[in-house]
Amino acid sequence: MKTVGIVGGSGYTGVELLRLLLPRNDVQVGFVSSRANAGTRLDTVFPSLRGCTDLEYSEPDVNLMSNCDLVFFATPNGAAMKQVPQLLTKGVKVVDLSADYRLKDVALWEQWYGLTHASPELIPQAVYGLPELNREQIASADLVANPGCYPTTVQLGFLPLLEAGLVDTERLIADAKSGISGAGRGASVGGLLAEASDSFKAYATAGHRHLPEIEQGLAGMTKDPVNLTFTPHLLPIIRGIHATLYGTLLTDISLDDLQGLYEKRYRDEPFVDVMPLGSQPETRSVRGSNLCRLAIHKPQNRDTVVVLAIEDNLVKGAAGQAVQNMNLMLGMQETQGLHHLALSP
Amino acid sequence: MKTVGIVGGSGYTGVELLRLLLPRNDVQVGFVSSRANAGTRLDTVFPSLRGCTDLEYSEPDVNLMSNCDLVFFATPNGAAMKQVPQLLTKGVKVVDLSADYRLKDVALWEQWYGLTHASPELIPQAVYGLPELNREQIASADLVANPGCYPTTVQLGFLPLLEAGLVDTERLIADAKSGISGAGRGASVGGLLAEASDSFKAYATAGHRHLPEIEQGLAGMTKDPVNLTFTPHLLPIIRGIHATLYGTLLTDISLDDLQGLYEKRYRDEPFVDVMPLGSQPETRSVRGSNLCRLAIHKPQNRDTVVVLAIEDNLVKGAAGQAVQNMNLMLGMQETQGLHHLALSP
Amino acid sequence: MKTVGIVGGSGYTGVELLRLLLPRNDVQVGFVSSRANAGTRLDTVFPSLRGCTDLEYSEPDVNLMSNCDLVFFATPNGAAMKQVPQLLTKGVKVVDLSADYRLKDVALWEQWYGLTHASPELIPQAVYGLPELNREQIASADLVANPGCYPTTVQLGFLPLLEAGLVDTERLIADAKSGISGAGRGASVGGLLAEASDSFKAYATAGHRHLPEIEQGLAGMTKDPVNLTFTPHLLPIIRGIHATLYGTLLTDISLDDLQGLYEKRYRDEPFVDVMPLGSQPETRSVRGSNLCRLAIHKPQNRDTVVVLAIEDNLVKGAAGQAVQNMNLMLGMQETQGLHHLALSP
Amino acid sequence: MKTVGIVGGSGYTGVELLRLLLPRNDVQVGFVSSRANAGTRLDTVFPSLRGCTDLEYSEPDVNLMSNCDLVFFATPNGAAMKQVPQLLTKGVKVVDLSADYRLKDVALWEQWYGLTHASPELIPQAVYGLPELNREQIASADLVANPGCYPTTVQLGFLPLLEAGLVDTERLIADAKSGISGAGRGASVGGLLAEASDSFKAYATAGHRHLPEIEQGLAGMTKDPVNLTFTPHLLPIIRGIHATLYGTLLTDISLDDLQGLYEKRYRDEPFVDVMPLGSQPETRSVRGSNLCRLAIHKPQNRDTVVVLAIEDNLVKGAAGQAVQNMNLMLGMQETQGLHHLALSP
Repeated sequence: MKTVGIVGGSGYTGVELLRLLLPRNDVQVGFVSSRANAGTRLDTVFPSLRGCTDLEYSEPDVNLMSNCDLVFFATPNGAAMKQVPQLLTKGVKVVDLSADYRLKDVALWEQWYGLTHASPELIPQAVYGLPELNREQIASADLVANPGCYPTTVQLGFLPLLEAGLVDTERLIADAKSGISGAGRGASVGGLLAEASDSFKAYATAGHRHLPEIEQGLAGMTKDPVNLTFTPHLLPIIRGIHATLYGTLLTDISLDDLQGLYEKRYRDEPFVDVMPLGSQPETRSVRGSNLCRLAIHKPQNRDTVVVLAIEDNLVKGAAGQAVQNMNLMLGMQETQGLHHLALSP
Repeated sequence: MKTVGIVGGSGYTGVELLRLLLPRNDVQVGFVSSRANAGTRLDTVFPSLRGCTDLEYSEPDVNLMSNCDLVFFATPNGAAMKQVPQLLTKGVKVVDLSADYRLKDVALWEQWYGLTHASPELIPQAVYGLPELNREQIASADLVANPGCYPTTVQLGFLPLLEAGLVDTERLIADAKSGISGAGRGASVGGLLAEASDSFKAYATAGHRHLPEIEQGLAGMTKDPVNLTFTPHLLPIIRGIHATLYGTLLTDISLDDLQGLYEKRYRDEPFVDVMPLGSQPETRSVRGSNLCRLAIHKPQNRDTVVVLAIEDNLVKGAAGQAVQNMNLMLGMQETQGLHHLALSP
Repeated sequence: MKTVGIVGGSGYTGVELLRLLLPRNDVQVGFVSSRANAGTRLDTVFPSLRGCTDLEYSEPDVNLMSNCDLVFFATPNGAAMKQVPQLLTKGVKVVDLSADYRLKDVALWEQWYGLTHASPELIPQAVYGLPELNREQIASADLVANPGCYPTTVQLGFLPLLEAGLVDTERLIADAKSGISGAGRGASVGGLLAEASDSFKAYATAGHRHLPEIEQGLAGMTKDPVNLTFTPHLLPIIRGIHATLYGTLLTDISLDDLQGLYEKRYRDEPFVDVMPLGSQPETRSVRGSNLCRLAIHKPQNRDTVVVLAIEDNLVKGAAGQAVQNMNLMLGMQETQGLHHLALSP
Repeated sequence: MKTVGIVGGSGYTGVELLRLLLPRNDVQVGFVSSRANAGTRLDTVFPSLRGCTDLEYSEPDVNLMSNCDLVFFATPNGAAMKQVPQLLTKGVKVVDLSADYRLKDVALWEQWYGLTHASPELIPQAVYGLPELNREQIASADLVANPGCYPTTVQLGFLPLLEAGLVDTERLIADAKSGISGAGRGASVGGLLAEASDSFKAYATAGHRHLPEIEQGLAGMTKDPVNLTFTPHLLPIIRGIHATLYGTLLTDISLDDLQGLYEKRYRDEPFVDVMPLGSQPETRSVRGSNLCRLAIHKPQNRDTVVVLAIEDNLVKGAAGQAVQNMNLMLGMQETQGLHHLALSP
């Protein structure tokens, strides 16, 4: 039995970690913090947890976390970087779901996040937690930077193409659409049902923080320079990301061969599902599950390849992938506790 | 390891049974039928099942079902009554999620369902599958009539009041609201997103088929005559039922005592959750879980008691309750495979 | 050409007033205030207004309003009561969409709203702006208290029954469901799409501020004591209220006669539509229009009458009714500028 | 007073034409047909029309239509081409909202639509009804082919770039998202709220019928060869199209100059709104209105231009544009009856 903690347990990724972890009998949740809710029972904030936990929220005190084998940070950007150094010193492993350790270039991070990094010395040892890329390093890591929601689909979607050198990496396009839970649980006018439902829009067209994260990841898959046009949009749904990826093919490769390339690359991946030729995955087909589904198209048999990539942004895009990383870091089976079928309908 | 079958596995209750049963390792799904999809893989119809089953739909042939220990009927009304007699003869237990064996009065059934009953002789032995009322009879039953979605919330909501004789049973009111999955997976104009979303309406005001089922159930809880005004409404959500129940109190009982009555009645029930005083349960708090949540109110301290009752119509209102009944019938732990936390958000 | 002003023009009732008033050529909007947005163009806050106005928000300064023939208050409760006295002194008519002048009993108002009333001396002269009840008084009023959204449907739904003395007024029930725009445009966690969509719940079960307003209105329709159980619920839709009303019939009246009673009462009302027998009105059928639709039922021909009443909470439940009142107060045709057909689908 | 008819008045474009036309007093609707509903009152099928018309649906009989000055075809593809020749002969003008006369290349039309064209001789005289391109020809036309919903946004979005020769026309991309009303009012499983809500997917990735229509239109704006990758997606909203357009800039033009180009091109267009720099238009900002809103971006100041284009697919994308065309053809003011502000929220 391992003990884990969650720092920042009153947001959507926090409660999703709880949904995945509380029913397990090989892991116990020993600590959940929330500054705003310290002293309150978890199931008061989230009635969906009634009957399965008597825990109360704590203050985010490092001493309280130090009995844990592993701690998840489901905090706003800028919080983990202050507490992680102490935890690592105490021998506690960390999965950081925020962006604090995702970018290798500290200056770039500070530019995009508008903060001074509090523990830049840890960045080199932080492993980027995309198991399909870095499985072995994750298994031996003490600190894992869990990927962002958009970056997971975009990287998994482009990966086989870039590894094979098939597309022009200077003009990649990711037209991405996210469910609104990606914006978090903070009160906002823009997130109100009366504002966001029955509507659709792009946002952050001039530059989203996930852009440098994705470009860093894509750059690691190829030796060519990488330029991505990344356009996020807000979907009037709760969960789900759909990334529609466009690349210009450099060679005359058939759709069948593209399909074969993807199937081969992901054959042994438990959480990446390459759909049959001609498919269009629906986000609801992964609602609540840890899967990323991909479909490959080559419209009109021209030289543009289109990849459709979906995930549940709170699962494979956040808490599920974090648990997948935890499983690897704690020597458990990678798929443990992640077998939920999607809720359908 | 027990083997079960599902007749009518291409509708919403069918796929929900699969979501609950496929991940289990004490039960295997050996048979799933669908006339319209015979020969097609299940995961072609429901991509959410990709990766966890290679099954194909069969024709609903009794011989194919007869290897099962238990068969679920998730068929339209009028189908089960034709095949159940043969299955029982072969020693196969049955949980019928349709309405065929719910009403004890055959004439009343034939009037509301517009059909001649094909196996009325089985009605007396069919046990009404509401475990909170009939747990022991279910455990020894060969044929269980699984309750309708509305009847589950309305009966669980009124039960303590009627058992205690506290309300005027001649003028009960159930103002009920259901998510649209309750209407099934058949193509219809009224169910289109463009018609049903961003809107709300009552339906079947003149008389819904669940009315006689509920009145039969309520009548069994009291010796007084029962009259229920039952007004169903259509919610623009996928899953969830909310029943708002009104009764006129016959005695001057305090809200605290009403609360105590409910807590006592349901103290040992694993799937009925009496919320704290002053609560208003949200349907999303049981999305995907087998719980029925109740809250008791006495507005302005007048003589009208208001009970709020919610469930996921596809789980406690259909497939989850069916699995709960199966567990009892097959001698398994009642809560086995039903521990899912609700998807939140 | 008349000139009108809007105090509190950055909320949902404010922008709805603008939608109805800006296209008119017999009325000009000369003044719109918003403390938070003073100096900002209206169409920056509401891009839907781009191209039809160059106005900027002002501070809510009485001197700026005093050129208007009539001023609408679309402010939070407690604001109008401070400025209305000065406006009336200056000869400006007022339609108050807040609750400040709705209750005739000042003590009751102060109890429910938790404020000390700033201008109780005006309450006697304020006319309750339900034209179907008070058309003539409205036409000659200087100050109209525009009814709340719930009260409009509940009162119009019960009116013929109470005027005819047909139901037991001590145990009336209004099970009401409102679209989320009724909660206003303020940032809140509960109103987030990720929280409120795909869900349903009751709220304010212990007592909603519209209860005393409705009971006051119903009491005016009858000489009997009135007790209403009022249960509001939150619908995951933007606009629309559906009130399901229950009353116990005191006499043995047929459904046909009930239907006739309603048709006769509302025959000449331009904005009340009594649907044919057997109907169930959908809220979307009045989306954007000023209509209240009613349908009368008598389930199982028992002694409970059920009235279904719908409106768009922002139109007949707020801004549309306010414009209807304005038309009457300024001597215009009552239906002027209110002919919009509902958006369908 | 002009008289118009609508063939196929029981679908979404039909009822939208009625919403726009019935309140007008310079046009009367004299004829509405629907094979399925002949003899039924319009307001029985669409309760939103109650109180504003006593019309009944007719059979689509050419003789009945011939009293009209202009007839709209809101029929499935393949119907208009059979009746239009007779109408033109009788001197009745026609606006065809279906695809029958949109493609100038008959063979291409027959390939994409799988039908033999019944009146190919009329194709040369049919004017493509995009007033921003063909205003004068429309004004003198007898037969107007009303553009498809996707083609309107994509063409208006790319138009200034292509006219100015600024982008590589061989690799244009339109990532388009449509509300579900675009799929029509026919019963289908895929369109059910329980299937399509809280989800998102691409469709017709291999080739959508609007592709050749758009490519034909774009080709007319430039002398270069045009290749478009067109990926439609299904939004869980009722109304609204959002097209995200990508082009590779051939020259080093600044974002300010791009913005200026668009503002100049559309300065006098009543229904095209170029948003300020940095904007992201929301589909709800045109819900129910005839506007197309555009915003121009140049992310990271690289060589990819991104245009965001929105419309209400039933208004500017169908019925509103048809009325705009009717106004031109009948010598009325182009904007007549099209001043509705969007419903907000």
